[in-house]
Amino acid sequence: MKRPEAFIVSIGDEILIGQIVNTNASWMAEALNQIGIKVPEVRTIADTQEAIRSTLDQLIGKYPIILMTGGLGPTKDDVTKTTLEAYFGGGWREDSEVLMQLEHFFKERNRSLNDANRGQALLPKACKTLLNKMGTAAGMWFEKDNSIVVSMPGVPYEMKHIMETGVIPGLKKRFSLPPLLHRTFHTEGIPESELMGIIRSWEDALPPEISLAYLPSAGRVKLRLSCLNQNGTGQELLKQAEHDLREVLGGEIFGTDKERLEEVVVRLMIEKEYTLATAESCTGGLLAQHLTSVPGVSATFLGGIVSYDNSIKIRQLGVPPEYIQQFGAVSKEVVESMAEGARSITGADYALSSSGVAGPGGGTVEKPVGMVWIGLATPEGTYSKCFRFGSTREGNVLRATQSALNMLRKHLIGMPWTENFWEKTP
Amino acid sequence: MKRPEAFIVSIGDEILIGQIVNTNASWMAEALNQIGIKVPEVRTIADTQEAIRSTLDQLIGKYPIILMTGGLGPTKDDVTKTTLEAYFGGGWREDSEVLMQLEHFFKERNRSLNDANRGQALLPKACKTLLNKMGTAAGMWFEKDNSIVVSMPGVPYEMKHIMETGVIPGLKKRFSLPPLLHRTFHTEGIPESELMGIIRSWEDALPPEISLAYLPSAGRVKLRLSCLNQNGTGQELLKQAEHDLREVLGGEIFGTDKERLEEVVVRLMIEKEYTLATAESCTGGLLAQHLTSVPGVSATFLGGIVSYDNSIKIRQLGVPPEYIQQFGAVSKEVVESMAEGARSITGADYALSSSGVAGPGGGTVEKPVGMVWIGLATPEGTYSKCFRFGSTREGNVLRATQSALNMLRKHLIGMPWTENFWEKTP
Repeated sequence: MKRPEAFIVSIGDEILIGQIVNTNASWMAEALNQIGIKVPEVRTIADTQEAIRSTLDQLIGKYPIILMTGGLGPTKDDVTKTTLEAYFGGGWREDSEVLMQLEHFFKERNRSLNDANRGQALLPKACKTLLNKMGTAAGMWFEKDNSIVVSMPGVPYEMKHIMETGVIPGLKKRFSLPPLLHRTFHTEGIPESELMGIIRSWEDALPPEISLAYLPSAGRVKLRLSCLNQNGTGQELLKQAEHDLREVLGGEIFGTDKERLEEVVVRLMIEKEYTLATAESCTGGLLAQHLTSVPGVSATFLGGIVSYDNSIKIRQLGVPPEYIQQFGAVSKEVVESMAEGARSITGADYALSSSGVAGPGGGTVEKPVGMVWIGLATPEGTYSKCFRFGSTREGNVLRATQSALNMLRKHLIGMPWTENFWEKTP
Repeated sequence: MKRPEAFIVSIGDEILIGQIVNTNASWMAEALNQIGIKVPEVRTIADTQEAIRSTLDQLIGKYPIILMTGGLGPTKDDVTKTTLEAYFGGGWREDSEVLMQLEHFFKERNRSLNDANRGQALLPKACKTLLNKMGTAAGMWFEKDNSIVVSMPGVPYEMKHIMETGVIPGLKKRFSLPPLLHRTFHTEGIPESELMGIIRSWEDALPPEISLAYLPSAGRVKLRLSCLNQNGTGQELLKQAEHDLREVLGGEIFGTDKERLEEVVVRLMIEKEYTLATAESCTGGLLAQHLTSVPGVSATFLGGIVSYDNSIKIRQLGVPPEYIQQFGAVSKEVVESMAEGARSITGADYALSSSGVAGPGGGTVEKPVGMVWIGLATPEGTYSKCFRFGSTREGNVLRATQSALNMLRKHLIGMPWTENFWEKTP
């Protein structure tokens, strides 16, 4: 079964000059994919009559669904509505339902309806109205040459409201949509090229209904499975693929779908009723920040020390000054002592620590930029591991933070984490 | 003078299924506009041979510059390089400089170069290489029918690196670009609508060569001036406009162009030879992280305490337990005591502290989500201010961090910061 295709057109100079990021297109693409509609392309075009007309000329008749956002404000630099009226023809009408809605909207905000805003109720006769309860610009649903063309405002929450209440229900009614299922698996710390080798035979054995995508980002790879659920067997096929993948990767999969590593760690810690503290040098607060980005983290995270200067390592964390002199601040001895210190002064069950050369300066031959020690103090003992990341300060701090969280996660689920399993010689 | 046009093509299913947001296109559009190149359209297409070929067919010969990102990884779902080789013809070559670079890249990370990665040195003969020191996929510069086609990896910091070291210098050499000058001024904590009113008469008096853009983001507004330097008077015009703007806004402008608030604060602190510590509750480490993102910060930042749990506020920072009982953790008394505690235990000259209701839970009628106290302990005394931000956890933490840094900055330059200057009754 062929999936219907929806082309997304974002209208707006503010994207073309790099002022804003096109989050609308991503949101729409995800919502459309969820219901089995494929997005073959996203275009961001200028808010001019010429750009809108020429884009419609290229797309109408070729794609069954064309969704546009932007250029519907009440000011004169918003040209989408007049361009569409001229394109589809048929003249104008005042939409009484939109007018009522506008009067209500302004009354609620203690403002009076001026002419510019009253003009928002004037719509092309050629379109069906999609009401917008969140703002003043209604959505418009046109049809021509077997293409549906929908125009929505560019304000994200107004667009989402119209998508959810008008566009998606309308498309579901019109098309018989294929049941597409997705499942994403997250890994941390395995290079993409290594991961490919490790799961190659699993990948080769995937049934034809399932397609796989590798989605890498700093230190991470997401594996996304998409499955066409044609005979109602999709869930079963995905379940089997997941089972087989877990046979290969086991606990290397830290989460699925929208789960974040810090959420997984916080959930594990809360389940086990453990408390956590941090002692950060090179990560400079990012580890605590990742943890505290999780709502409810206060049930496990007591707090931490950012021991940037050695005096704080010594005075607050009790690191012996002779360790720093003898081994240097970036060392197994210091990072383990930092973790133990944080655990001891906070009374937490576990403590994570970091010490490394974030860069750009400070690297030496023995301790180059990107070298980071992570420490973990637990009720059973203290562990540490040395990582070698890259050359950017931002990337090193981020990867050190992610690696620390993953070390704790692996420890909590009883996995070995001091060596990379793919580096083991068989 | 007509500005040359650069068409941006983002290749990647992960954008078309809504998994990631296309931040690359915005960054590139901004960088191109900076040097006077116009971006007429951005397209996001699927990572298939057909989509890439058909897009090139549509664009080559029509646009002088076509910049593509994505699909250059070592895995078999990355088809950009093979598609481009087939499209431009000419066969393959192993690029010895890229190979050396790859060997160095893997050696630095203590990993061996496998076949998949060695394949990254294989490039089409038809392209000029753009070296990538941040990753394994080189950039490729092709030319055909008066169009330059550049392909870069989709990893943002790799793309930025290749843009800055290869693409932008190359385009500057090739095109005679209009002499466009830019100057950006950063403000923090002034709502856009207030700012517009404050600077209206300055804006109305700008000469016609200068255009102004308001670029708002969480808690901030950037004012970007663009000046066409046609008779060599552009610098002078911008200087005058800056002088006049500073007459109105004074120290409310925290920086210009690419300066970040944390950099300005760190520079001021280092100039004055002061040391700094932090005591964070609701900001959860983000304040320390913003500071430590600045290379060289160790000359002023000693470290901090993330006192998430009240026990840490009491035990590590010496906050009197009765303050917490009587006034609550989110209070003037507690936030000032936190700052004083951090200053005292670290021996720093200054200490910043935060305590607030980040959300989504924990709000009450008196202390709603978004209410944040910021404290500042100095050699001359301790100060604090209460802010009311928004409803999202992420936004509240970010705005609290920015506000704390701006409070310290204003204190250091001798500005009043306990009240908003635009709220003063004249």
